[in-house]
This record gives sequence, structure tokens and C-alpha cells, in this order.
Amino acid sequence: MWAGPLIERKRDGGALEPDEWRSLIAAYTAGRVPDYQMSALLMAAFLNGLEPAEVAALTGAMLDSGARLRFDHIRVPCVDKHSTGGVGDKVSLVLAPLVASCGVAVPMISGRALGHTGGTLDKLEAIPGFRTALSPAEIQRQVELLGCAMIGQSADIAPADRKLYALRDATSTVESIPLIAASIMSKKLAEGISGLVLDIKRGSGAFLPDLEDELELARTMIRLGEDHGCRTVALVTAMDRPLGNACGVALETEEAIAALRGEAPADLMEVTYALAAEMLMLGGVARSAPDARAMLEQAIRSGKAASTFRSVVAAQGGNPAVLDDPGLLPQAKEVTTYQAPRAGYVACVAPRVLGKAIVEMGGGRRTMEDAIDASVGFVIAVRPGDAVEAGQPLASIYAGNADTLRLGLSALSRALRLSPEPPAPALPLISHRVSTGGVETLT
Amino acid sequence: MWAGPLIERKRDGGALEPDEWRSLIAAYTAGRVPDYQMSALLMAAFLNGLEPAEVAALTGAMLDSGARLRFDHIRVPCVDKHSTGGVGDKVSLVLAPLVASCGVAVPMISGRALGHTGGTLDKLEAIPGFRTALSPAEIQRQVELLGCAMIGQSADIAPADRKLYALRDATSTVESIPLIAASIMSKKLAEGISGLVLDIKRGSGAFLPDLEDELELARTMIRLGEDHGCRTVALVTAMDRPLGNACGVALETEEAIAALRGEAPADLMEVTYALAAEMLMLGGVARSAPDARAMLEQAIRSGKAASTFRSVVAAQGGNPAVLDDPGLLPQAKEVTTYQAPRAGYVACVAPRVLGKAIVEMGGGRRTMEDAIDASVGFVIAVRPGDAVEAGQPLASIYAGNADTLRLGLSALSRALRLSPEPPAPALPLISHRVSTGGVETLT
Repeated sequence: MWAGPLIERKRDGGALEPDEWRSLIAAYTAGRVPDYQMSALLMAAFLNGLEPAEVAALTGAMLDSGARLRFDHIRVPCVDKHSTGGVGDKVSLVLAPLVASCGVAVPMISGRALGHTGGTLDKLEAIPGFRTALSPAEIQRQVELLGCAMIGQSADIAPADRKLYALRDATSTVESIPLIAASIMSKKLAEGISGLVLDIKRGSGAFLPDLEDELELARTMIRLGEDHGCRTVALVTAMDRPLGNACGVALETEEAIAALRGEAPADLMEVTYALAAEMLMLGGVARSAPDARAMLEQAIRSGKAASTFRSVVAAQGGNPAVLDDPGLLPQAKEVTTYQAPRAGYVACVAPRVLGKAIVEMGGGRRTMEDAIDASVGFVIAVRPGDAVEAGQPLASIYAGNADTLRLGLSALSRALRLSPEPPAPALPLISHRVSTGGVETLT
Repeated sequence: MWAGPLIERKRDGGALEPDEWRSLIAAYTAGRVPDYQMSALLMAAFLNGLEPAEVAALTGAMLDSGARLRFDHIRVPCVDKHSTGGVGDKVSLVLAPLVASCGVAVPMISGRALGHTGGTLDKLEAIPGFRTALSPAEIQRQVELLGCAMIGQSADIAPADRKLYALRDATSTVESIPLIAASIMSKKLAEGISGLVLDIKRGSGAFLPDLEDELELARTMIRLGEDHGCRTVALVTAMDRPLGNACGVALETEEAIAALRGEAPADLMEVTYALAAEMLMLGGVARSAPDARAMLEQAIRSGKAASTFRSVVAAQGGNPAVLDDPGLLPQAKEVTTYQAPRAGYVACVAPRVLGKAIVEMGGGRRTMEDAIDASVGFVIAVRPGDAVEAGQPLASIYAGNADTLRLGLSALSRALRLSPEPPAPALPLISHRVSTGGVETLT
């Protein structure tokens, strides 16, 4: 296939026909269109955009390039959640077993940490023995049995997306709303789900800079989901500060386990409940948000959610004793506290500074090949707006050695800004709900 | 070298520093930056443009990637001409020996036919035995002896441009003014010349669609030339109709030989004289355009220009008898005339239609690997605005067989449009002169 005329049309602001996208993606995946032509086309698409019909065709082509999970034989509905990523966002670990324990199956395919944001797979693998690579048969059996599997993207799911994503990563064509939407949705739709809830992060620690872009991403993904028969809803949540207290792989796993026991910071529980409630409604097991909320609180209180997570951990080879003894998670060699250098108000807890510091301390990845130290990170004891005294402990740092401990201390001094006056209010924790009906402001 | 941040900056509308262009081009030429990254950067440059300092750095980096001809030991100045290409444009074959016979050396590196436009190398190689691949030593000796060599781009001239041009050709990033300017000038500046005249073609048969783009290309190339100590002037000439009568490889060689004897169509001689006069002035052997014109006409009349061409042909292995007997050039198997279907005025002689027909008839190239039949083409007997009778011969078609003859007839019926009323005037033959002093309108 000669891609020249397609590149030219996209370069000049035109659109490719759905059939052209399908042929192009099939030819590229089969190696019949070279990387250098595809990267020129991707850059033209990045700069000139894609029309809705093009995003749909690209998503469909990437979805069709690989296998799909099928759960037709399961009686319960299958629903999943996707987050655009942030710092301290350990919602998936709590939400998947919680929702499953309420009768909606969650076949969750997650990713790894990259750049300043964490990844669910790394947090699961902090549990000794936990396997995230399951065969399709294992996934099917486990979802049938426990209502939940928490796994990585296998090579046979959307291989076209895998190849394109690697090319985009190498050619600075990642941060494009239509390309992001197509990439995410081609993988999520391969899960065989009938509903999807999107957690669109907003604020300085989020992937996209401004609210309009985030809403556009939400609308694009909702359209793609609904076009494929997958009901899709998005919540816009705050990422101008970390979610919860813990930031760092194993520290977040520990906080997620606490959350399953009902012992988590209020903001983490609020976001988890809000997303989970949407999933219960999409799955048809709750009729309203208050109904769903009551079911979810009961599942935490009764221990059903924690018990489901325990079963998932055991089924995937992990040591379930970790639920009772977080000391089984990787432990940092060096721990110290960071104290307020003076009295004042917490003006800011900058998530991006913390996320990047975790990478520098060895707890994140610059490239997908990097190994990580799951034990490092921060536990932040304050929120923006809190009044603090001089010398009051604001955070703990967990590091692998004295050098990275110093890196962490330095990052905290930059991330935790104090001001003499109370700061402007932070972003509302959950600010918008987006569905096929439009954008609803929640504050 | 990791090109990601450079691609990102160009994508976001920023500029690369001169040092960054130099490192990037050096690394790309050495294979340390992959094609897929370079093509993404080229597409971003195509869509977001390059600043003047970037074009200069890119040109310099491509120039520095290879060897340069040196003529320091020659007493006479070295000057060259470059045309942006058109149909029927055989000026180079006339102009190089003509200017050389007036005491300005012309070490001319030319290209091959591609797309609808012809190429000087093909026209030279229509002469039996003519070699366009000379060693640097041969070129130097011949320029010293005859004041003229007519050659192709060797592998050691601007190899970075060669590699980049092939990539641009495959990724729809050719038609960008800064990229075109940098590509042309990196090769021309490698000729070791002190002056350069640009023939910027304008009209439907030209490479660029509109005058503003052509003037911008002229200004960009002038700036690049002057920055490298090469005085550069541009003339904007008409390409809304073919130049001269002959269109097609060997037919154009034959018309060029006639021109060297003073027997060419007036428009061809006018453009040739105008460009050649600029070269004599840049070379310092004429003080004014009228002085130069007198010298040039004298060189034609005296036979000195033809004699120089004869020597060049002989020196480069060609059969000089071709100057006396054009029958030694490749001859078409099928020849016929195209007659006016009705009386009227010639409204248009569409050069692009004729150029594309020549490619279809086997006399041009779709890709650089295509072989060509030098004998095919057209000789057009009329100009836009001419009044013609029904049945009057308007053109001759030269073809390899009856099928391609029919193709040629069909093309002529589309290219030669007749109208009942006199048409609007065609573009002025030479409309603008561009120099460091600005744009001068000549009509």
C-alpha cells in the first residue's frame, strides 16, 4: 500500500475515509506501510486533527487488529473504569473488587507507571507473587468465578495500538485528543464490556492542560464507546493535588488495602464511590446514585469488598496475607518526616513535582524498559488550605538510600508550598459528569 | 541522539537552534536518528514553517554533510543558474555554454526529469555518448579548460539532502518553501560558485501555485545564497505556457542546439538572454544589462557559444556531430500533426497537461527508477492569443507507437484550448526581478 496520497490529504486538512483508515492500519500492522510514513501521517493528524468519523474508523481498525475478551456466558454485566492518570490515584485497586462484590463484573486491563503518573499493574505486582499476565481462559474463568480480574494488556489485544503507541511515543505525537481517545478505547472495547466509566483528571497533575480539552476527550471517548454498544460516562475529578495521602507504588497499594477496610482518606473514598456508583448504574444493579452508594458502603462495611480482593489476590498468585499485614509489601530502607519550615497555610501540594520526584527516586519509569523500586514515595499528611504550625510534620518520605531521601526532601520543599494567607480554594473533587446527554456541572 | 524534544518543539510552533539543526542533520545522515523521527519532524516543519535562522542552519548542515567543488585556482568567476522547473524549459543547455563563452565559468549540477517537469541531465544524455557523471578532478579540469561542465549530483555532494529528499518524497513533505529552498541551495552552494541566478517559474505549469509563494521562495534562497557569500538574484518567468516550441527530452535538446545557432523561438532566447545577462553581471564581466546582452548576442552570432557547447559535448564523451545533424538524437517512431478542430484564438497551451502526457507516453518519470524514451514529446507551433484557422496544424506529436500517439493527440486536444474571442493576455514572459534590494516589477 502506498500511503503518500493519504498523508498528503491529512497534511492539507482533509479527512481519510473510514475504509482508508481500515486499510492503512491493517497495512501498517502487517508491516506494509513503513514507520516513517505513519509517523508523518500521525504528525499531520496531531496538528490538523481528526474528524469524528475518522476517530471512529481508527478506533475500530485498532480494535479489529486483535482479539477480544468475551463474557457472553456470564450472567452478570461487565463494566470497567479508565482513568487518564494522576499522582496518588490508587482508585482501581479499591474499585474493581468493590464493584465486583456488588454484582457487576470487572475485567480490568491496566497499564504501568510512565512519566509522572503511576500504574495499576505496578501497584498490584508490589504484592508478593501477584501475576498480571493471565491467559484469556484464565481471565474468563476468574471473572466468572470472582467477578473480577486485574490484568495487563496482552500481545493479542489491539496490536495495532501497541505498534502505533510505540511510534507516537518516539515521535512526539502522544498528546492528541483523537489519538489518545482512539488508543484508550480500542483497548477498553476489547475487554468485552457493556459499560465504561471514565475518570478524567483535571489540574496541574493531569495529562491534558485545560478543562475544555478534558471535556473534549471525554465527549470523544463517550461517542466511541456508545458507537460500539458500550455505554460510557465520564466524571471529571481533581488532580491539582494528589488523591489520598500515599504517592508511590507500594505505599498506594497499602492505602488501597486500607480503603477496602473503610480506613482511607475521605477524598479517595469519595472519588472511588462516585466512579463505582456509575458502574453499578451502568451494570443495572442500582437504580440511582444514592442506592448505589448505600450498596457500596455496605460492601465495605461488611468486608465483602476486601474479601473479593483477597480472592483476586489469591487467584492471581499473590500472597493474600498482605491484606492483614502490609509489612509484606516492599519496605523502604530510609524513612523520615518533612516538617513545616514555618507556620502558614498549605497553598499547594503539587502532584507533578511529587510524581517526577518518585521517578528520580527510582519508583517510576522514564521508559517502559526501566525497572522500579516499589518501596519509595511519599505519604502526605496535609491538604491545600490546611493551617499548619512551624515544625508540624507535613509528610513522610520513603527512599532507598540517603541520596534519594535528599531528593525526596527537596521535592517536598518545592511541592508543599506554604503561604501566610489562606489560598484560593482548590479544584472541586468531582466537578463534572459527562454523558451522551451532555456536560453536567456538579459543584 | 534522541530527537523527541526537537520534534516536540517544532510541533508546538517553536524553533530549533542552529546547533540543534546541525547535530540533528549530522546524526540523521549517520543513521543515528531514525527515518520515522525525521519524517515526523519534517511534517511539523512543513505545517508550522521554519524561521530564517533555521533554514540557514539546515542548509548549512546539509551543505557540510558532503564535499564541495573548489575553483579557487581558476582566474574567471564561477556562476550558475537554477530553475524551479517547467515544461519546455531547455534554457540550461543554451545558457551554460553561452555564458562560459563570455568569460564566466559555469560548473552546472543539474537534475533529472521528475513528475511533469523535464530534467537537464536527460536532455544531455540524449546526445549519444554524453556522460554526466564526472569525477571532481574531471570537473575541475574541464571548467578550467572550457569554462563549463554539465553534470549530475554525485553521491558526495550534500548526502544529507539526498537522504532527506528521498524521505520527503515518500512522506508528502516536498512542497514546503523552506525545505525546497534549503534543498536547492545546499546543492548549489556546494558548486563553489560566487554568484547564482534563479529562474522562478510562475503560472499553471510551475511547482508553486501562486506568486506570493514564488517571491517568498526567491527571497529565502537569495538570503541563503548571500549568507554563504554567493551573490544571488532571481527572475520570475512565465510558465502558464511551455517555453519555446519543443516539449520532450530529445526535441528540447534539438531546440537548444538551434538556439545556440540563433535559430530558436523568441521567448526561449529572451529568457535565456535575461538569465545569462544576470550571470555576466554577477561574474563582473558586464557592467549593465545592455552591455551583457550585446556580449551574449555577439557570442551567438559569432558561433562562439555553439563552439563552447561542441567542446563540452566532446569533453564529456558525447558525439559533437549532433550539433550539425540533429538526426543523431533519438528519433520517434510515430509522428503526426494535430490540427485546429475549428477556427478561433488559442486560449491556452496548458503546460501541465503536456508534461503529464509526456510521462504517460514514456518520456518522463513517475519515480526516479523509471527508464525514459527520450524521443517522445510535442512541438507546439502556436502561442496563447494566436488566431488560427480550422485545419491549421497547431502541433506535432512524437510517439513510440500508435497507442501513445493517441495519448498525445488526446492531451493536445485538452492542452490547446481554442476560444471564439481573443483570450486575456498570458503572463508577462519575465515579470519580476528579486535581489537583496527587494522585488522589482519588470512589466
